[in-house]
Amino acid sequence: MTEETRKVVFICSKGSLDMAYPALIMGWAALGNGIDVTIFFTFWGMDLINKARVDHLEIAPIANPSMKMSMMGVPGNLGIPNVMGILPGMTAVATSMMNKKMEGMNVPSVREYLGMMCDAGAKLYACKMSVDMFGLKKEDFIDGVEDIVTAGDFMDMTEGAQIIFI
Amino acid sequence: MTEETRKVVFICSKGSLDMAYPALIMGWAALGNGIDVTIFFTFWGMDLINKARVDHLEIAPIANPSMKMSMMGVPGNLGIPNVMGILPGMTAVATSMMNKKMEGMNVPSVREYLGMMCDAGAKLYACKMSVDMFGLKKEDFIDGVEDIVTAGDFMDMTEGAQIIFI
Amino acid sequence: MTEETRKVVFICSKGSLDMAYPALIMGWAALGNGIDVTIFFTFWGMDLINKARVDHLEIAPIANPSMKMSMMGVPGNLGIPNVMGILPGMTAVATSMMNKKMEGMNVPSVREYLGMMCDAGAKLYACKMSVDMFGLKKEDFIDGVEDIVTAGDFMDMTEGAQIIFI
Repeated sequence: MTEETRKVVFICSKGSLDMAYPALIMGWAALGNGIDVTIFFTFWGMDLINKARVDHLEIAPIANPSMKMSMMGVPGNLGIPNVMGILPGMTAVATSMMNKKMEGMNVPSVREYLGMMCDAGAKLYACKMSVDMFGLKKEDFIDGVEDIVTAGDFMDMTEGAQIIFI
Repeated sequence: MTEETRKVVFICSKGSLDMAYPALIMGWAALGNGIDVTIFFTFWGMDLINKARVDHLEIAPIANPSMKMSMMGVPGNLGIPNVMGILPGMTAVATSMMNKKMEGMNVPSVREYLGMMCDAGAKLYACKMSVDMFGLKKEDFIDGVEDIVTAGDFMDMTEGAQIIFI
Repeated sequence: MTEETRKVVFICSKGSLDMAYPALIMGWAALGNGIDVTIFFTFWGMDLINKARVDHLEIAPIANPSMKMSMMGVPGNLGIPNVMGILPGMTAVATSMMNKKMEGMNVPSVREYLGMMCDAGAKLYACKMSVDMFGLKKEDFIDGVEDIVTAGDFMDMTEGAQIIFI
């Protein structure tokens, strides 16, 4: 009797840069540990596999109370005072700061990361309802997206998996 | 020896329209596949079972960097330029756009969806601490909410389940 | 043949007050039920273990469409009209309201809760990539943080666990 391979499934429902990375970082580590990795993209998470958008992901400083103080020298943050979040351009500043931090740490871009993960055996799927809602087609997606699947397919594919909703 | 029924548990902690649907869509599919479905409502997710609020859920364009560009014709979004998010009325516009998209796809409203799911055997529970924090009573809830439960009850009920926190 | 102890793992990725509590409340209940509890802190969730920040967590009213109406007497919310979210000071008002509600219900502060959980056997870990990104050091953390771990370590430690991403 053989033991079943461990399976981890990520659901990416957010389209912001900060919430794109958790699935990539954990998923990549999982692949390195011989774990089966599947990623489903749904709602705003569709941006991560949308060719026209994956290279333009942003973080939204305005809604994140954690994104303060470090500009004043308090360690532990990228720093943008909250009130300034409403000024046009602040989203761009915070996004550029995060992108630079990631580059400085040699973290691949979202597009590169997804490519590496596919090459290493991860399976990527787009949620059918989101595809319909946003009026997308298969050709709008980056390479490596296996298929467009329904929620029923999703349930079938995730039996016995650790499911992580992001 | 009988195999145990697969169990999926959703925790709905958000009160926005876009984060209401994932549990409904996945949960409904799970029920169709013969899976045991339980939904816990906590924090802002209490709005989904609050009679006075479930029909008035909104999406908040201001904090969502994904909600741009499509007004300028880029596919893949509902579209509201980010800066406009701060203007009064933009939340209403984005919400109305999403509601129309969902209706056009024959997706039931949140209230209808929860009713259908209860009829199909899903169990709905409200988190006791949130009930206390928000000053709610059992009669504030829509029909179908089974009980108000503590975190300890929750842990008991979720043994062996796939837990999805939204 | 001995049955394995149930394991629950929380990933805290948010630094706001409202998204700090779910892991604490569920984790504390789990410990009470004899369940193994591990908490990983990553991205904005680092604020929960950052000595300089854990006592200053905030909720951001601006992005949360659920935080309305109750000031006008509709039950079920802490209440701040959405448009007012952009006024400086509104975040502070909402945060102070939530802190008072929690105190009134004898809910410990985040710092106290984490201390209690460590004493009861919970294990706390910081995510290495976030530590590097935010330029943090072990001495920036509150007592009780066991170690700084990579995503690979995380995958090793979470085998067989129910993983809850917050």
